Amino acid sequence: MYKAKAYSATSAASRLTSTTIVRRDPTETDVQIEILFCGVCHSDLHQARNEWSGFMPTVYPCVPGHEIVGRVTKVGSAVSKFKLGDLAAVGCMVDSDGTCPACKAGLEQFCQNGTFTYNLPDKHLGGVTYGGYSDSIVVDQRFVLHVPTNLDLAGAAPLLCAGITTYSPMRHWGVTKGKKVGVVGLGGLGHMGVKFAHAFGAHTVVFTTSPSKKDDALRLGADEVVLSRDANEMQKHAGSFDFILDAVAADHDINAYINMLHIDGNITLVGAPENPLPVAAFNLIMGRRSLSGSPIGGIAETQEMLDFCGQHNITADVEVIPIQKINEAYERMVKSDVKYRFSIDMASLKAE
Amino acid sequence: MYKAKAYSATSAASRLTSTTIVRRDPTETDVQIEILFCGVCHSDLHQARNEWSGFMPTVYPCVPGHEIVGRVTKVGSAVSKFKLGDLAAVGCMVDSDGTCPACKAGLEQFCQNGTFTYNLPDKHLGGVTYGGYSDSIVVDQRFVLHVPTNLDLAGAAPLLCAGITTYSPMRHWGVTKGKKVGVVGLGGLGHMGVKFAHAFGAHTVVFTTSPSKKDDALRLGADEVVLSRDANEMQKHAGSFDFILDAVAADHDINAYINMLHIDGNITLVGAPENPLPVAAFNLIMGRRSLSGSPIGGIAETQEMLDFCGQHNITADVEVIPIQKINEAYERMVKSDVKYRFSIDMASLKAE
Repeated sequence: MYKAKAYSATSAASRLTSTTIVRRDPTETDVQIEILFCGVCHSDLHQARNEWSGFMPTVYPCVPGHEIVGRVTKVGSAVSKFKLGDLAAVGCMVDSDGTCPACKAGLEQFCQNGTFTYNLPDKHLGGVTYGGYSDSIVVDQRFVLHVPTNLDLAGAAPLLCAGITTYSPMRHWGVTKGKKVGVVGLGGLGHMGVKFAHAFGAHTVVFTTSPSKKDDALRLGADEVVLSRDANEMQKHAGSFDFILDAVAADHDINAYINMLHIDGNITLVGAPENPLPVAAFNLIMGRRSLSGSPIGGIAETQEMLDFCGQHNITADVEVIPIQKINEAYERMVKSDVKYRFSIDMASLKAE
Repeated sequence: MYKAKAYSATSAASRLTSTTIVRRDPTETDVQIEILFCGVCHSDLHQARNEWSGFMPTVYPCVPGHEIVGRVTKVGSAVSKFKLGDLAAVGCMVDSDGTCPACKAGLEQFCQNGTFTYNLPDKHLGGVTYGGYSDSIVVDQRFVLHVPTNLDLAGAAPLLCAGITTYSPMRHWGVTKGKKVGVVGLGGLGHMGVKFAHAFGAHTVVFTTSPSKKDDALRLGADEVVLSRDANEMQKHAGSFDFILDAVAADHDINAYINMLHIDGNITLVGAPENPLPVAAFNLIMGRRSLSGSPIGGIAETQEMLDFCGQHNITADVEVIPIQKINEAYERMVKSDVKYRFSIDMASLKAE
């Protein structure tokens, strides 16, 4: 065991503060990573503040962070995938049983015995897992990803959650060249959705309530921007979309977007509004449309996504912050005041 | 043109009564059919009573009926598919443009220029189309189906709507041997869903609120019956279904059934409750589940369904009525007092 620097919340109401945590010495299949950047996901805030007490109560101290990129500093004797000095990344998962049908299908995200990167029982040290707001982490090589060397690392970090969460449903529902794809909600997830849809060659349309977001949407790769409050504009696109990525976590009128779908079109929710969304059955029946949800992807697909990002030079648009600004970043995130993701430069932690 | 006997509603509040309508003489591509049986669909009642005034106002007189089986009495000179004396069937559609992408894909049900069997503009005679509560009908051969000769004709009639509406989504979402399939709502549609799921070789489970329906569900082909109000029984099946057919037209808790779905499982609505269904996004996200809807199928698939029914000797469970009992049948249908479909013996109309 060794000591690592970290930032943790000590209660639901507390600010995140500097602390020291214990990490395991790498086992023979482990990779030890010096964390260089960690993206800041809305989940981090929910977990730190125990806002998911109903289904995943927070164990304190809580070290959030599951958008991790860094460099390999040690490998176990049985590690074949990584060597000292390699770039490496860790996302939302650090373990799964490897034996269930989901794991065997490469869908570790659906393993009933999986371990998230923070706040789930740590089978090595007891207690719970600690995430990426830290200067290092030790993870089994199965859950460590390769990072293409051409990518900006600060912007690459959010690929591990925001990236895979938007890439995975587009692959699953067949987004390719020639398809018409919509993105609702231009935040951390949505802006990645625009980049991926564009890179897949789809005709990419951003729906937004704010005319002010138009230029940025086009810059990110949108072919068109539709003001969702303009009934005429919406009507022009009715029934024309093959796929819509809905990244809105607040209450919104899902039926308006279901009506945008073509025959057999799909709209996938990647944001989870607190209240149930009223869905008009008739809108689904006419056109055989579907409404689905999607979490992150499996490990193989996450690597595929990172490789795709390397080929297309895709990273998140980030505002880099020192870890000492994390509490301020949380406050700004609540107000959606970030374009489009905070990425913590972990050099700031090492300098403490 | 010639005169045909029929039953029609003359206003939203009127009972259906005997009348005479005009049918066209068969054109060179038309098939004239002596109607032997016509199933009674809930849509007939909605249309007759103008309950869909918002999107498909009823034009009176209205002759409902789109579950038609009969015998060919005349064919146009260019008709190759049918000859005099053949059994023949007509479902919910009698025309489509034949040129749009949906038609070219064999998905005539999604043609924007399609003509329903009743209450849509009749391009031959003006006015609106008249349905199957009649002693004969004339339909272009493209929209006339072959009926396997081994099927009971009274029970075969409902296949044209209730049958294809439940067969089509099961085929679309991949119901096959080895899958676990649920059916919610054991009425005209649901009981066909049970028969098809069983015939496809799926492990078939009926969800019902009524213990009294258990024996009938098993008789229809269910392997298991789950009382949906029994939380323990429901919990046992959580996360285990590949596909659920939801044939409930009343308000109900769709989330309870979404939670029954396995990874990538789909629940398809074929009933359209009047009020929007509240859907919890989280239940869709976890498990990448989908909620969809489905109307009828295309013509080729309808023929495929009829052929499948011939091979497996599948028909609807019907209560055969004379057309003079149609108003009473409507009243009973509103109370779900029918197992499971009324089928009008059109000999009763000829005898008038």
